[in-house]
Amino acid sequence: MRDFSQDHRWLSLNTATIRKSRGQDLPLTSILDACAERGIRAISPWRDQVHAVGLAEVSRRIQAHGLELSGYCRGGMFPAADAQGLQAALDEACELNAPCLVLVVGALPGALQGQAAHKDLALARTQVRDGIAALLEDARARRMPLAIEPLHPMYAADRACINTLAQALDVCELLDPLPPGAPRAARALGVAVDVYHTWWDPKLAEQIARAGQQDRLLAFHVCDWLTPTTDLLNDRGMMGDGVIDIPRIRGWVEDAGFAGYSEVEIFSSGNWWQRDGDEVLRTCIDRHRSSV
Amino acid sequence: MRDFSQDHRWLSLNTATIRKSRGQDLPLTSILDACAERGIRAISPWRDQVHAVGLAEVSRRIQAHGLELSGYCRGGMFPAADAQGLQAALDEACELNAPCLVLVVGALPGALQGQAAHKDLALARTQVRDGIAALLEDARARRMPLAIEPLHPMYAADRACINTLAQALDVCELLDPLPPGAPRAARALGVAVDVYHTWWDPKLAEQIARAGQQDRLLAFHVCDWLTPTTDLLNDRGMMGDGVIDIPRIRGWVEDAGFAGYSEVEIFSSGNWWQRDGDEVLRTCIDRHRSSV
Repeated sequence: MRDFSQDHRWLSLNTATIRKSRGQDLPLTSILDACAERGIRAISPWRDQVHAVGLAEVSRRIQAHGLELSGYCRGGMFPAADAQGLQAALDEACELNAPCLVLVVGALPGALQGQAAHKDLALARTQVRDGIAALLEDARARRMPLAIEPLHPMYAADRACINTLAQALDVCELLDPLPPGAPRAARALGVAVDVYHTWWDPKLAEQIARAGQQDRLLAFHVCDWLTPTTDLLNDRGMMGDGVIDIPRIRGWVEDAGFAGYSEVEIFSSGNWWQRDGDEVLRTCIDRHRSSV
Repeated sequence: MRDFSQDHRWLSLNTATIRKSRGQDLPLTSILDACAERGIRAISPWRDQVHAVGLAEVSRRIQAHGLELSGYCRGGMFPAADAQGLQAALDEACELNAPCLVLVVGALPGALQGQAAHKDLALARTQVRDGIAALLEDARARRMPLAIEPLHPMYAADRACINTLAQALDVCELLDPLPPGAPRAARALGVAVDVYHTWWDPKLAEQIARAGQQDRLLAFHVCDWLTPTTDLLNDRGMMGDGVIDIPRIRGWVEDAGFAGYSEVEIFSSGNWWQRDGDEVLRTCIDRHRSSV
């Protein structure tokens, strides 16, 4: 297992983590500058943040700073997604040289707006599978891997109906059934493992191993689960402030062959988004060393 | 599948559902009277509500009204539980002639108080298994079945580290490995299936079938998942107000051999506990007919 205690070379910042500084929107350009200044080598930007600045400008600045991407957030929301939007997400991920496009797959149509069009979760899951299958052909042609991110079961209604790593891997095997010996570069479909979404899963260790055997570990996201958690979406904790044994899970991921960035992704309307962005960055760096 | 549309003979009220009326505590005696008046044949009381009135008085009134129990809530919280308290829970369940003692098994010690003593979820799961094993001998001798209730993964840190039906059944098979052909009365250990905790599970149908093959379906709880859900504990919805396809799940449970009560269990600090208890009861009866 890599030693993270001495530096932060394997820290990536998911740019949602400081999308606000002191409660005010922080433009992606400022986030990129701040990361470069703090010696953070990689980021994972959100589409809305990229659009607010403009793709060309973001791309230029990423190159100027020599930043890498650990992912691009996000494609998906399939039951309601438009094909054009998904194409654009792929285009942007390619332009920014992302290693993968992270898929948050969506769930019951309308549920995110508070009014589900139906209650047929099995149907939504079938539609998601079909949606990934359709996008996969384009992604394969563009050599842009898709990373299915299983979300915590508390998001099953409105954000993602793929809720366990086992379920995500079942979809991978169905749609992208390469023999296990095939080279990693050939994997068009894999998974993003976020400790916040998966830490509770009694089968997590075995499913991470399964993902590794198939070379499907495309991204690793960290934050922490707070007790109590006061909001289902925007109360994620800083690493070390909650109950997740992050080093143990990172050990499983690395044993399974993952050697990429540890991406900090925190949504926190009541705490971290209210603080100064630079203070948050410094804390991320400290906690990356002590608690990841 | 039984027709619930014509009457409410298979409705049981978990008494937490109207533990408050118009925001004020409603004594269990009043709840029992209200159930009898509305033709509700069964209840599942909580220990704290029983203690507030006194076991003897509760027992007397249950018998006077001819009420049945669909369960008794609850034993468990093992990593921190005292043996004496668990014995008392068993005693009370026997005195009230409950069909099972529902176990909410606990998780990381201290997490419910906001400060987890450690982050070793695997250890907590081992301790829970050992705690159930110790209680099981007494429960078997008293002929009081224990029903493990898997709780939603969002409670994995602080309330229950058994979070899927598969995981609960693994524990059942380990600790109570009767051959499948043995009579139901011989089952000392089974499960309580609550749609709120389990609806998201992609393996729910198959695991309900597995539970049925082993005669381990001891209780069936209903309420609904709201979108958005604004509180992790006290924002459960009335059946029909959320996204859970309850009739589908009840069909699975009945196909697996369950023929008991459908127990309404709603915690709702912002809505139902603010209304008049009798209005809530009438709504439960209506929704039992239309949405369960």
